[in-house]
Amino acid sequence: MSTPALKADLVFTTIEGSVSAPAGFRAAGIACGIKKSMGLDLALIVSDMPAASAAVFTTNKAVAAPVLVSKARLQASGGHSRVVVINSGCANACTGPDGHQTAEAMADAAARAVGVNASQVLVASTGVIGVSLDRQRVTDGIAAAATALARDGGAAAARAIMTTDPFPKEAAVDVTTPAGRFRVGGIAKGSGMIEPLMATMLGVVTTDAQIAPALLQRALAAVNDVTFNAITVDGECSTNDCVFVMANGASGVTIAEEEFDLFVDALRRVCEPLAIGIVRGGEGATKLITVEVTGGATNEEARRTARAIANSPLVKTAVHGADPNWGRLVAVAGRSGVEFNLDRARVQIGGVELFAGGRPFDERAPLASEHLQGRDVTLRVDLGTGKAGAARMWTCDLSAEYVKINAEYRT
Amino acid sequence: MSTPALKADLVFTTIEGSVSAPAGFRAAGIACGIKKSMGLDLALIVSDMPAASAAVFTTNKAVAAPVLVSKARLQASGGHSRVVVINSGCANACTGPDGHQTAEAMADAAARAVGVNASQVLVASTGVIGVSLDRQRVTDGIAAAATALARDGGAAAARAIMTTDPFPKEAAVDVTTPAGRFRVGGIAKGSGMIEPLMATMLGVVTTDAQIAPALLQRALAAVNDVTFNAITVDGECSTNDCVFVMANGASGVTIAEEEFDLFVDALRRVCEPLAIGIVRGGEGATKLITVEVTGGATNEEARRTARAIANSPLVKTAVHGADPNWGRLVAVAGRSGVEFNLDRARVQIGGVELFAGGRPFDERAPLASEHLQGRDVTLRVDLGTGKAGAARMWTCDLSAEYVKINAEYRT
Repeated sequence: MSTPALKADLVFTTIEGSVSAPAGFRAAGIACGIKKSMGLDLALIVSDMPAASAAVFTTNKAVAAPVLVSKARLQASGGHSRVVVINSGCANACTGPDGHQTAEAMADAAARAVGVNASQVLVASTGVIGVSLDRQRVTDGIAAAATALARDGGAAAARAIMTTDPFPKEAAVDVTTPAGRFRVGGIAKGSGMIEPLMATMLGVVTTDAQIAPALLQRALAAVNDVTFNAITVDGECSTNDCVFVMANGASGVTIAEEEFDLFVDALRRVCEPLAIGIVRGGEGATKLITVEVTGGATNEEARRTARAIANSPLVKTAVHGADPNWGRLVAVAGRSGVEFNLDRARVQIGGVELFAGGRPFDERAPLASEHLQGRDVTLRVDLGTGKAGAARMWTCDLSAEYVKINAEYRT
Repeated sequence: MSTPALKADLVFTTIEGSVSAPAGFRAAGIACGIKKSMGLDLALIVSDMPAASAAVFTTNKAVAAPVLVSKARLQASGGHSRVVVINSGCANACTGPDGHQTAEAMADAAARAVGVNASQVLVASTGVIGVSLDRQRVTDGIAAAATALARDGGAAAARAIMTTDPFPKEAAVDVTTPAGRFRVGGIAKGSGMIEPLMATMLGVVTTDAQIAPALLQRALAAVNDVTFNAITVDGECSTNDCVFVMANGASGVTIAEEEFDLFVDALRRVCEPLAIGIVRGGEGATKLITVEVTGGATNEEARRTARAIANSPLVKTAVHGADPNWGRLVAVAGRSGVEFNLDRARVQIGGVELFAGGRPFDERAPLASEHLQGRDVTLRVDLGTGKAGAARMWTCDLSAEYVKINAEYRT
């Protein structure tokens, strides 16, 4: 965004739809019998032409087979994919060489069904760890899904990648620029094992802009850092996390270095609501919590405190109970391992200052308590260092329902 | 323990009682009106003669007033205390200069009531953060507690330091050595905001052995590392944590460098059951979980994984639901930031191997599930590096009751 003229001509419009909203993309979501519930469990997202592609993957050292397969194929294609295939209901993780072969078979089946080169397929799985994925069922399902591909198939794909998610996550934006219009769309799933040190979930983003793979990877990394990597449900990092982005150029709009900031902005406008959707639909969640930390010695230190607060069971249970227990925020900030000045620190809940200058203002607690009754909660901590480091993270409250879901996930 | 002869003559006997079990100690626990429930809320532990003293304190940077006061007085006395005074029901943390004066007033009142030098008093508080502690009530209470001091007062003191603890934690041991007999006794409290990076709770240990303050501090640090610092309830580090130890020499048995290992052993035999008691009585806990990690590149790396497992909400909820979900153990080990080899890693639940050589053994799941039905659960992970680093930690399961307790703590 170097030219002011271009900036003035920019219009971002939020639109319906998701991965099949950009031109030249089709999608499908079907049931192939992996989920015992017989719910949708297989998603296929296809670009009608080769697309520059980029990805971020889990940093967990226990890496699931589909992650390894996607990494290898993305490299083999030189960052040009055409298909993303995802199953839910089984993570195909910790399943040995046989599981690896199943992930390869999924990618090969998708390549055959759609008629593309085998290296142009990215694959992902989500569900229970350590259970074998039925190879026949999933490859048969892929063949069936290919026949169901449609321009309005994004909604079905968004449903087909869900596990314990209470609702599907879709977002899309239309961008008008002096050089023409392009679109970005995306889907994502949560909703447990969500932690902010990597792409902590599954996400697929498509765009009909034209962009080189290396620039696309840079844009994804930048956006990922402030969206999918800025959320947490339970501090757990999965074996299967990945976010894919495919840019097929069908709009005729080219993104070069000069349009990079504009493209990042468009990408962020899709990824941020998807990320927030994951948190809002977190396991057992009843409230979306925005944690804002200022006064950090650095942004990184502020981020560390924001992450500690967002993962604190005592903070999350207090919010769940609408208890303006600011002392827990002070205690977490104090233990988060960063520069912290108790005498100059400040704590606000919903904009109500409850602690400052080393003293509580408990007479304001009823106001903060009122804010906590709502579904959207903002917690602000200033670390009191007088420096400018800042960070924001999103999380959800911790409810008895989270315990129930995870104590009974397999049984 | 350098002389084998001494070793053969050693007898450790677990005995009734706690802080007042060693000779020359008296204790009291009374109600002074800090707790609305009118339960016991003030404990006094007194040595009839000056005692070498040592302490470990919270590493939280939001330090409560009593911690600052105890640090200062311990230094002023050169490590020779005679009194520990503790109130429950109010943490006196984040309470500004007024709170600091109240902590000083508590120590001064105890010094006057018992008739010792003001520097010989250590003070601690536990309860809600950010609420003022009623100075008049607590100092009146200290005067009353001084009149109630008794040789069998340890049990009352153990009850008086409880907050949400479901039961008091007491332990004592009698040690016979060729040089004579001595005793070690202790009390501790939990039960939320328990995290293993410091002395994560309140504990008071007494002994009638004679030992120099510096050696006592070394012994406490060594034992603390494998007891109080090896437990976690919820990964939260409090503003008020401290463990005190006083050694008054009343037994006539002297601990010098040669007897150091023996003394550490005696101390550990008191601190380990106290630490395990804290976990067993953790908020909402129904099971004690022992986490053992082997195959670490170093002990420190094994400890890091053990801590990550012990703090994992997905592991803790799975154990709560008796679900042998070993995949979650692999996922946590993989994200714990240490050297990890998925193909050589091994996971056991209750001694039943469920994952090894990169493959699951799900046919054994029913056996593991049976183990998980019990109240004592053992989880073992080998990181598969082929190296000898090992660590052990204790934690409890995560139940809906934990959420309930912490969502309603103040309301």
